[in-house]
Amino acid sequence: MKTVEDFIITIPDFPEPGIMFRDVTGVLDDAEGLKIAIDELYKKLDGVEYDVIAGAEARGFIFGMPLAYKAGKPFVPIRKKGKLPRETVEKSYDLEYGTATIEIHKNSIKPGQRVVVVDDLIATGGTMKASAELIEELGGKVVKMLFLLELEGLEGRKKLSGYDVDSVVKYPGK
Amino acid sequence: MKTVEDFIITIPDFPEPGIMFRDVTGVLDDAEGLKIAIDELYKKLDGVEYDVIAGAEARGFIFGMPLAYKAGKPFVPIRKKGKLPRETVEKSYDLEYGTATIEIHKNSIKPGQRVVVVDDLIATGGTMKASAELIEELGGKVVKMLFLLELEGLEGRKKLSGYDVDSVVKYPGK
Repeated sequence: MKTVEDFIITIPDFPEPGIMFRDVTGVLDDAEGLKIAIDELYKKLDGVEYDVIAGAEARGFIFGMPLAYKAGKPFVPIRKKGKLPRETVEKSYDLEYGTATIEIHKNSIKPGQRVVVVDDLIATGGTMKASAELIEELGGKVVKMLFLLELEGLEGRKKLSGYDVDSVVKYPGK
Repeated sequence: MKTVEDFIITIPDFPEPGIMFRDVTGVLDDAEGLKIAIDELYKKLDGVEYDVIAGAEARGFIFGMPLAYKAGKPFVPIRKKGKLPRETVEKSYDLEYGTATIEIHKNSIKPGQRVVVVDDLIATGGTMKASAELIEELGGKVVKMLFLLELEGLEGRKKLSGYDVDSVVKYPGK
């Protein structure tokens, strides 16, 4: 039986020397890899009580949507500013260079709803933190932050302390 | 039994007077809507022989990935320029204002593979046309172009003549 690790493509010294780039799109290239990745994420939701799955543009859509379909839950897309047509709330956060702003439809999360937020990769945790703050602003409760990959060297969990953070594959480096 | 139409949110006179904006994210807000949308798309693949599902950033990911998971096929993400880490081929195409460039990993499509390309909406057909050209450049064959919604007034099919174009819901206007 293969595992998710077998399908992750590592690109050494990209984008700069010393960085081992983990290419998560490798799991998508193979029908078996794709199935294992989604099934392993789904297993992490075993025993979790939740109402909605959310994911941030664009790779959060890739892993969040099949989970929502499989689980029979709605999916809340968190998008870059200017993409959602209905009334939104927005949040800006710092990137390595500059800032980013993400939005969520106001009526996509109802007060009291329990939300699982999914993304491909936890690096510094910035996008996930901002996503959680938007969900909480609408009265939702983030019951789990779920990632396919975790780069432990970037210490994203520090920024997400107080949340239930979980990942399928952990790499010790950056 | 509800249908996909029941979950599409129409926003009149947006972004300008006379345009009926069809908001496809409405299907995602509801667990039943999401399930019906994916199941109806999946039915359209009945009898189609294909090896891979592809979809363009970002809403092509939303509908393409659950289909790929359900069908047991790989998923090929078509992304805006600069997002894919491995070697790519790229294509620029005209938008209403300016141009856009999309990319695909070179080794995601093998020569001879039969590809279904999925998107949320067929409007003018520009992104889908460019996607098909990239797939063909890599030796793939586009066996179906599948959309959840079709805005017939924009005549996107004209640009996609010669392809098997199919959609779940058709609106006569723009």
